[in-house]
Amino acid sequence: MDDETLYMTMLFDFFGELLTEKQREYFDLYHNEDLSLSEIAERAGISRQGVYDIITRAEKSLVQMENKTGVVGKWLRTRNELQRAETIANELIRMTHGHGESAELVKELVLSLEELKN
Amino acid sequence: MDDETLYMTMLFDFFGELLTEKQREYFDLYHNEDLSLSEIAERAGISRQGVYDIITRAEKSLVQMENKTGVVGKWLRTRNELQRAETIANELIRMTHGHGESAELVKELVLSLEELKN
Repeated sequence: MDDETLYMTMLFDFFGELLTEKQREYFDLYHNEDLSLSEIAERAGISRQGVYDIITRAEKSLVQMENKTGVVGKWLRTRNELQRAETIANELIRMTHGHGESAELVKELVLSLEELKN
Repeated sequence: MDDETLYMTMLFDFFGELLTEKQREYFDLYHNEDLSLSEIAERAGISRQGVYDIITRAEKSLVQMENKTGVVGKWLRTRNELQRAETIANELIRMTHGHGESAELVKELVLSLEELKN
């Protein structure tokens, strides 16, 4: 999956439900199920160009929603920061050799950070 | 600010830019600037009922967007989990008496968690 597709599917995960049903359906078949435009067209009984237009509009809508809200960007920054926090926490576990009262706390902290990723 | 208004302004922070300009304007005057419906009506040169309808539609839209995407709920859970992680990290600082190599790491961790709240 190339970077742009990855980004698109991420936008779709956040905002997909705000698209129209058709946009959501064709977007999903194209980007997530990896069907070709022709395959979707055949299945839907419309032209390949029709499918292309609907998917393109869906993509534009998703990008516009992100440009307006910044929700996915915020989420990506959070993920990065979490990754950093986890690296530090794991280093702490290494330093305490996984024993003692503070090691238990650090383990709890790592669990808490793991939760945050979901 | 009551709980419902707090929730509404939170939804507005996330999705406000997806509303129409008028919805955004009146919502903001009512919920953030604390103007009354009559004051907004006078300022806008439309009826009080007209203002009420637009704000109600804005609120419905915001709630619908959240029901569909779950973005704000996800964010609130993240905030709670972060709070928990921070409490643990501060307890770790207390235990290490703020000295030594691991204390430095924990401080770094706390900074990292602080970042996540923004």
